[in-house]
Amino acid sequence: MQTVLRSPSGKQVIISPAHPVVVIGERINPSGGRRKELAAQMAAGDMTLVREEARRQLAAGAGVIDVNVQSAQVRDEAAALVQAVEAVAQTVDAPICIDSNNGPALAAALRVCPGRPLVNSVSGEEASLARVLPLVAEHRAAVIAMAMDDSGIPNDPQRRLAIAEKIVRRAESLGIPPEDILVDSLTLSVGADAQAAAVTLETIRRIREELGLNLTLGASNVSFGLPLRPAINAGFLFMAIAAGVNCPIVDPMKMRETILVANLLRGTDPHAGRFLAYYRELQRAQPAGQ
Amino acid sequence: MQTVLRSPSGKQVIISPAHPVVVIGERINPSGGRRKELAAQMAAGDMTLVREEARRQLAAGAGVIDVNVQSAQVRDEAAALVQAVEAVAQTVDAPICIDSNNGPALAAALRVCPGRPLVNSVSGEEASLARVLPLVAEHRAAVIAMAMDDSGIPNDPQRRLAIAEKIVRRAESLGIPPEDILVDSLTLSVGADAQAAAVTLETIRRIREELGLNLTLGASNVSFGLPLRPAINAGFLFMAIAAGVNCPIVDPMKMRETILVANLLRGTDPHAGRFLAYYRELQRAQPAGQ
Repeated sequence: MQTVLRSPSGKQVIISPAHPVVVIGERINPSGGRRKELAAQMAAGDMTLVREEARRQLAAGAGVIDVNVQSAQVRDEAAALVQAVEAVAQTVDAPICIDSNNGPALAAALRVCPGRPLVNSVSGEEASLARVLPLVAEHRAAVIAMAMDDSGIPNDPQRRLAIAEKIVRRAESLGIPPEDILVDSLTLSVGADAQAAAVTLETIRRIREELGLNLTLGASNVSFGLPLRPAINAGFLFMAIAAGVNCPIVDPMKMRETILVANLLRGTDPHAGRFLAYYRELQRAQPAGQ
Repeated sequence: MQTVLRSPSGKQVIISPAHPVVVIGERINPSGGRRKELAAQMAAGDMTLVREEARRQLAAGAGVIDVNVQSAQVRDEAAALVQAVEAVAQTVDAPICIDSNNGPALAAALRVCPGRPLVNSVSGEEASLARVLPLVAEHRAAVIAMAMDDSGIPNDPQRRLAIAEKIVRRAESLGIPPEDILVDSLTLSVGADAQAAAVTLETIRRIREELGLNLTLGASNVSFGLPLRPAINAGFLFMAIAAGVNCPIVDPMKMRETILVANLLRGTDPHAGRFLAYYRELQRAQPAGQ
């Protein structure tokens, strides 16, 4: 199954098991308190950092750029999201992932977004289905489907799979085909529940095998509350990709080597071409003897 | 399915999908030219380094200690293997993996080895089946089955699976049950063939799913001829464990963190107990500010 996104100039980005893993760069996101400067600029209508993050992520291997402007400082999300989407589209030629749970903001961004974007996200919650899917259908976009519903995030793979199926059916009833849906199997912390990652990995395997859908994943929650988070996050990303994830949402700067190695190992880097190019880049940055 | 090994004192080591990954420590092996001192000591009947490597690997988390004495310097393999097996058994209380393709040496080592060892290895080659399986049956040992036969290493998962099935059937005809067989799906370099790791991972998945067997793997060949080998090897180990490997043969010193993270993520480290103990050990070794 192939999910086809398009960049502002019309260039295709194909997500499928046979293609290299496509990274959605997550860095244009002011939430979490770590990105105060980004939030302040967005609130002031200054797109300098947004453009810079778009460029840096593309250089680090991102194939799609997520754009999220939600923060307490941003009063008019629709206006800020439109501005940020336009800024990214003018700066890099990569498909955009419009990241909002605000219906009017999503609608406004979809109207101005060139190419074929991804919408982040719909869940199995009735309000979310009603808010997001008609917009996705109207704009013939692709969409991320989160495996949770009005009862929350199920703690077993079978129920997460059932939610994914429900979203697929609802989408089909609006004319959105299954290939335009990327499922996020959802990640909880293994610090809080020892089975959390195992449940996610089993969900990924079953969705891949039984539904054949393409799969995204935000991986960093897995290490919440634990030390050595980068090692845990990278390990989880390898395991998730082995299980079927082919379009993860990550920080491309932090996960660049992990993604290159994963593509090398899943057979989607012929002649190790991109891996060796990365190695030569490392060598140029750090000449022998230093 | 549970593979049960026993240490010299009779302590069980259980290999199963529900138990933590069991590491077979590979460092007692003089081959490859990198271990000249080990080879020289073995040839001279000096077991100092053998004992030291056994202790160090156990401290780094190994659950089973592989013992291989094959090198050009060692003239009498049977005598050296017996001596090394006895030295390891006296030094650490862990099951031993007797690693030899020499029938008389294997027979001699099995006679003296306390506990319940693992034999490394049998293949689907007729000579290997005839040489190794009767010894495994006689000593009620467990055995590693390599997915290759007289035609070499097949380049597709279906044929590797068929060889594993053939070895299982032959073993059963001698009274060796499937739970006493760990399959090595075999690893070739992704530098030579872009699909090499993908074929191994698919073989692992299918053997796990269709035969339900426990799985070992020597992972380091995957990066042969490429730069940044530790990163590739660790990534491959994560992917192989995600696919079903639960008893890899590795250098426990180099792969300690990878194995701890993998157990954390596959749900076999309750309360992150071993992972956090490792982290505290790291902190003691490197106090804050250094």
